[in-house]
Amino acid sequence: MNNPTAAMIVIGDEILSGRTRDSNMHYLAKELVKIGIGLQEVRIVSDVENEIIFAVNELKKKFNYVFTSGGIGPTHDDITADSIAKAFNVKIGVRSDAKQLLTEYYKKSKVTLNESRLRMARIPEGAHLIENPISGAPGFQIENVYVMAGVPSIFQSMVSFSLKNIIGGSPVISQSITINLPEGEIAKALKKLASENPEVSFGSYPFLKDGNLGTDIVIRINDEEKIIKLTKEVKSLFKVTLGAEHE
Amino acid sequence: MNNPTAAMIVIGDEILSGRTRDSNMHYLAKELVKIGIGLQEVRIVSDVENEIIFAVNELKKKFNYVFTSGGIGPTHDDITADSIAKAFNVKIGVRSDAKQLLTEYYKKSKVTLNESRLRMARIPEGAHLIENPISGAPGFQIENVYVMAGVPSIFQSMVSFSLKNIIGGSPVISQSITINLPEGEIAKALKKLASENPEVSFGSYPFLKDGNLGTDIVIRINDEEKIIKLTKEVKSLFKVTLGAEHE
Repeated sequence: MNNPTAAMIVIGDEILSGRTRDSNMHYLAKELVKIGIGLQEVRIVSDVENEIIFAVNELKKKFNYVFTSGGIGPTHDDITADSIAKAFNVKIGVRSDAKQLLTEYYKKSKVTLNESRLRMARIPEGAHLIENPISGAPGFQIENVYVMAGVPSIFQSMVSFSLKNIIGGSPVISQSITINLPEGEIAKALKKLASENPEVSFGSYPFLKDGNLGTDIVIRINDEEKIIKLTKEVKSLFKVTLGAEHE
Repeated sequence: MNNPTAAMIVIGDEILSGRTRDSNMHYLAKELVKIGIGLQEVRIVSDVENEIIFAVNELKKKFNYVFTSGGIGPTHDDITADSIAKAFNVKIGVRSDAKQLLTEYYKKSKVTLNESRLRMARIPEGAHLIENPISGAPGFQIENVYVMAGVPSIFQSMVSFSLKNIIGGSPVISQSITINLPEGEIAKALKKLASENPEVSFGSYPFLKDGNLGTDIVIRINDEEKIIKLTKEVKSLFKVTLGAEHE
């Protein structure tokens, strides 16, 4: 059986303008690998309602799970919750369970639950809340779409909460082998090895270090014995004596 | 007149699996801002022909320019050039001008132009070459799509080459103001300011530092005087005395 698949939508002009370098995607990718879910596509879209709706509608049909980050705060440019409600064609409004979470959190931190903050209790109909132990305001899950905050530490805590309730697949094992030869020198032998082992994924990733081209070969398959065998084969094929990995 | 728009397609399983953290997107975003081109969407797709074709076809219609990174090397998993040819429904084969570039480059570096390396001279019909001073093998431009390497230093040199021949727009000026208050405290006043200045983009980006929530407000418009005026207004509105920016 194939592993479940996922996509991510990063919502944020600040990433597209180069102001901020996104880190949530890299974090999510690593967490999904651990539980055997294959992240197949990521889209970074701007804070524009139609763009968010379009991406959500395309990806929720195509993949088992969709994770979003960003745009669920209290300011005028936070439009994710409303866009998701439109994508699912459901109503959105302040929900009592979300308001209760905010009330409790702000009471503890002695902060006023003002009109702007109350916006963060607006949840699309039929969604389940995703807890936020860091700053109170929840994310939410509607069908196969998980809507989470953009601030990295909050995103990360929402990912842990969400993944607890998701059924993954068989964790894929991978082994990276660094070869101090350019791809052009090893391509033919590697192609032969890949065609002899069609059930295994052989990735070839060039790098440039001190002006020299080298290659990281990454072997991926859910079979530890096979990984060990193929790693030996690759190492002997390209006379790798290094133990350490590149980077 | 509106500034030209762009999208980027990052082609690479190694990004989606979390093995590598992409840096090309952040680099391109900053270069495009400088010449007044708005990066509106980024997609990270896997090394699968249909996925690349689908993304190229959707984005080349929607935006003025599309930039891709990755998958143009000599190994079996480098399928970008063929996928682009299919997306444009044109033939692909070894082209003499590209072969000439490789021959010259490898002669200088005393490297054999073997069969695998010759794959890198396969260029879709009608494309223009993008020079690669670092490792010889060219990228290419076909209509509004610029196909470039994934290795960051090579990607960067191909971006410089490509952007020289692209007509940009008016560079957008932006000013970031760090406020040591959570978004919930400033949202109402910021919304008022944004609605009073509809021609200006006001972004509000929360951050968490030492356990406290703060906000970066980013003002964007192509009008230096207005930026200065609004920066003063924001600072006085939220009693900002700090000179330094967050991060």
